[in-house]
Amino acid sequence: MNVDQITGANIADLARGAAILGTGGGGDPYIGQLMALEALQTRGPVKLVPPSDLPANAQVLPVAMMGAPTVMVEKLPSVDQFVVAVEALARYLDVEPTHVACMEAGGVNSTIPIVAAAEMGLPLIDGDFMGRAFPELQMVTATLFGIPTTPMSITDDKGNAGLFSTVSNLWAERLARVVTVEMGAASIISLYPMNGAQAAQAAVPGTLSLCVELGRAVRTARADLRDPVLAVGEVLGGRAIHAGKVTDVVRRTTSGFARGEARIAGIGAYEGAVLTLNFQNEHIIAKRGGTILATAPDLLVCLDIDTGEPVTTEGMRFGHRLAIVAAPCDDRWHTPEGIALVGPRYFGYDTDPVRWNEVDLGR
Amino acid sequence: MNVDQITGANIADLARGAAILGTGGGGDPYIGQLMALEALQTRGPVKLVPPSDLPANAQVLPVAMMGAPTVMVEKLPSVDQFVVAVEALARYLDVEPTHVACMEAGGVNSTIPIVAAAEMGLPLIDGDFMGRAFPELQMVTATLFGIPTTPMSITDDKGNAGLFSTVSNLWAERLARVVTVEMGAASIISLYPMNGAQAAQAAVPGTLSLCVELGRAVRTARADLRDPVLAVGEVLGGRAIHAGKVTDVVRRTTSGFARGEARIAGIGAYEGAVLTLNFQNEHIIAKRGGTILATAPDLLVCLDIDTGEPVTTEGMRFGHRLAIVAAPCDDRWHTPEGIALVGPRYFGYDTDPVRWNEVDLGR
Repeated sequence: MNVDQITGANIADLARGAAILGTGGGGDPYIGQLMALEALQTRGPVKLVPPSDLPANAQVLPVAMMGAPTVMVEKLPSVDQFVVAVEALARYLDVEPTHVACMEAGGVNSTIPIVAAAEMGLPLIDGDFMGRAFPELQMVTATLFGIPTTPMSITDDKGNAGLFSTVSNLWAERLARVVTVEMGAASIISLYPMNGAQAAQAAVPGTLSLCVELGRAVRTARADLRDPVLAVGEVLGGRAIHAGKVTDVVRRTTSGFARGEARIAGIGAYEGAVLTLNFQNEHIIAKRGGTILATAPDLLVCLDIDTGEPVTTEGMRFGHRLAIVAAPCDDRWHTPEGIALVGPRYFGYDTDPVRWNEVDLGR
Repeated sequence: MNVDQITGANIADLARGAAILGTGGGGDPYIGQLMALEALQTRGPVKLVPPSDLPANAQVLPVAMMGAPTVMVEKLPSVDQFVVAVEALARYLDVEPTHVACMEAGGVNSTIPIVAAAEMGLPLIDGDFMGRAFPELQMVTATLFGIPTTPMSITDDKGNAGLFSTVSNLWAERLARVVTVEMGAASIISLYPMNGAQAAQAAVPGTLSLCVELGRAVRTARADLRDPVLAVGEVLGGRAIHAGKVTDVVRRTTSGFARGEARIAGIGAYEGAVLTLNFQNEHIIAKRGGTILATAPDLLVCLDIDTGEPVTTEGMRFGHRLAIVAAPCDDRWHTPEGIALVGPRYFGYDTDPVRWNEVDLGR
């Protein structure tokens, strides 16, 4: 399903879907929706362009928020800042941007580029460079294709701005991360400037359309009294691996990330079994008993068991009844280079990636 | 005394004098001397221009090292990096620099601009913007005259580079400091771009000449079998406030600074009295018994008691026999604005500034 524009009519579906692809991170989807809705109502719809339709010499400037989602909830970004970040990079590069892009189809990082595109009167690429959300800047398909993170811009709500040019994408993450922390654990960045040919090659195509489709699937399932969790699993090609009540969430905002662990005591078919989710902004690994059920780079999505609404890590509360859906990521993440970049070992877990469909779930 | 050029013949005196004005910070003067000597031998002498002789529209670009002196000793900066930092800022501003300048007449930050000037074939301002060394970027007379720290460039030895534009000079310090720490606790920066009129107004004039004079005073006093400590006191208009043996140095490199405390057990006239020096890169406060003898912004200089050679905080060793000289800073630091910027309270000491010549030294 290809959506050809983002409007006030599909932004709520998109924001809900983005929170699903956010896999726990990406901040409150409602905030992202409100920001985008305001821009769409003022500036009109934003045209979506499939990556394969980009002119080779298109000048693509992605924009994103960097930092801890726990902070984003308390410190709303200003719409002006999105444009400031993109324009700072454009001025430094001395280019006229032709398209805005998402680096991360997840949470507010799906909606911030919509706002920037609306404000700047530019089309937006229907795709991203993760196919989901990941916590660090270098964790994008662009890195796999040798596209540098920098030059990049970084801006804060106070009016401070920086530009970086680094020797590797990991160094861009390191320098931008400490600046983000000093800026108050949230910044707006424009990065990975690229041409249309590069974007067409590296992008995960169709992820904004997928967000709309996911959000709509939850909404219509609910309206038709079908199971919305099942609907999400179908759209993503995955399935529920657990259902339970949140009994414990440990969360700390350190080094500019929201890190922590959630314990979900099984209910129904999962009665008596406790699932543990470890996250760094996004959910990285799911364990039950001694068994790892699924890990990054595949998706681990927490949904409200009744409504199918996505639940972010900072939104998890004691007693919350959740379904956990595991689903496949973009195939390119399962190459050796992809696993080195976003596999569980990078996040500090001593395990090869585990795919939920290769484990005997025992139920 | 005005020196009109820096050559291979006066660089050793200048480096020694710069370490004296470094008041404990600024890194090993011998390293600074070697770097400058190499550049002067290859490129020829560097012309010194008094700030009052600058054309009003001169384009002045200062250059400096940022970070912990303890780290500079182990990780030598590359000469190329100085030019890279200045040129990155010039390119960003789209200006052709006409003069290089020192922000800090202290330690390697006196010699790094000499290297940059030699390599770029530009004259150097005979002056700086502290009249000594201070640990933070905003602690310059330029701040008192409303000259912004940014745009500034920041570079490391690996090839990473950044540019900042900030809402205040303190924000420049904050953002550049965390980047410096991430870069390995040392970076090369170019900052406070200004025109000739601004430099003439804000500079502390003649400080590079003063460095040469100080270094020469130590050398000739020694050659003439006079007391070199007395000679330094005379040139600076200060006097020795203590003499003793180092019994204890606590040093930690945190947040990109070398912080710590040295205890110096009195000898001779000071037998039985212990002086405590607290430092953040530079010496901030000197106490003996319950009495504060002197504080920033005035100068606290440690000299080898026999040779008059300046001793940096990282060079202090158990048993080292030192004389501590206190001397007046530039008058502008004793204004309310100056004290707010570099007085003892800013460094966390609950005291008004104490001037050594207002305290009964008791001997």
